[in-house]
Amino acid sequence: MADDFNTYIKRNINLNDEDIQLMHSMALEKKAHRREMLLQPGDVCRHKMFILSGMVRLYRTREDGSEHIMHFATENEWMTEPESLNHGTPTAYYIEALEDTELLLWTKRDFTQLSIAIPQLKTYSENIIAKNLAMTRERVFNTMSATVEERYDDFIRDYPDVFNRIPLHMVASYLGVSLKTLTRVRQAQVKR
Amino acid sequence: MADDFNTYIKRNINLNDEDIQLMHSMALEKKAHRREMLLQPGDVCRHKMFILSGMVRLYRTREDGSEHIMHFATENEWMTEPESLNHGTPTAYYIEALEDTELLLWTKRDFTQLSIAIPQLKTYSENIIAKNLAMTRERVFNTMSATVEERYDDFIRDYPDVFNRIPLHMVASYLGVSLKTLTRVRQAQVKR
Repeated sequence: MADDFNTYIKRNINLNDEDIQLMHSMALEKKAHRREMLLQPGDVCRHKMFILSGMVRLYRTREDGSEHIMHFATENEWMTEPESLNHGTPTAYYIEALEDTELLLWTKRDFTQLSIAIPQLKTYSENIIAKNLAMTRERVFNTMSATVEERYDDFIRDYPDVFNRIPLHMVASYLGVSLKTLTRVRQAQVKR
Repeated sequence: MADDFNTYIKRNINLNDEDIQLMHSMALEKKAHRREMLLQPGDVCRHKMFILSGMVRLYRTREDGSEHIMHFATENEWMTEPESLNHGTPTAYYIEALEDTELLLWTKRDFTQLSIAIPQLKTYSENIIAKNLAMTRERVFNTMSATVEERYDDFIRDYPDVFNRIPLHMVASYLGVSLKTLTRVRQAQVKR
């Protein structure tokens, strides 16, 4: 596990062993069971999380209980709710483990300290949030301009690793369509 | 103009006069005419921009030429295309001045230098991107779960200053509906 993290950090942020050791020494290790909630509406998000193994999702619910998935993260990806973390305000989101998941957690305070000691980390952190923004804008654009068929194909292409590990109703929830609609799209594709 | 920037920076980032002076000294001042393009698809985004006066929009087009607006920014707000800026890759977006607009521009290199000299600036910059991410996620959620009526009301409430300054077809483009649909929604509201 620790080795995976070291390999990831070396490949992506190009830190030396001493810096990686410092990052690791300030992290909390956590094991979350499948379906365990790591954040719930009304909580304040306290951590930046790095996923060593497993998968988590960030989602929101409507008053009628329906779920809208914003983001999936798997091994060697990061997860947090940045607005809540940055401002200490209650979140509207859930973060849930979709599989048994192993994580490294840093508090905002510790991550800030690390960023002072390791300036590349701050730039890297900003780039990850910017990448998430770009993906979310792409999603707004696609929701408005592409067909369900195209968006389903995009999802399979962009998230093959997620697609193979989640139930179909979560794909529907991510695409913002009913399970019935998605099933119809899939059946039409099989016939083609 | 310079005074507005100084007031904004003091209120939002709490810098001393010397730091503000340093920021200002590294900025390019630019005046853009109404409808002038500050970024176009295929360009690499080279600047972080601060809007002193006027208004800009970030948008994308489909192959059929239809426009999808991602973001508006007015006085005392920031604008950039962070993915293109961070990675030096061609953008898919337009940034257009919707009014005669005065801006301060920093290159990525100069803003990085400033962030080393003024660490609060880096945190502030990350927080702005995180806020944009939160707004865009909110928009995905609303597009999937709220009616056009609700989303129109939200737009007026959240962007009163933008709403009063743009033509109705841009409101429709932001909401991802046709002008015809939006007109119908507005007429029904008047009748209520």
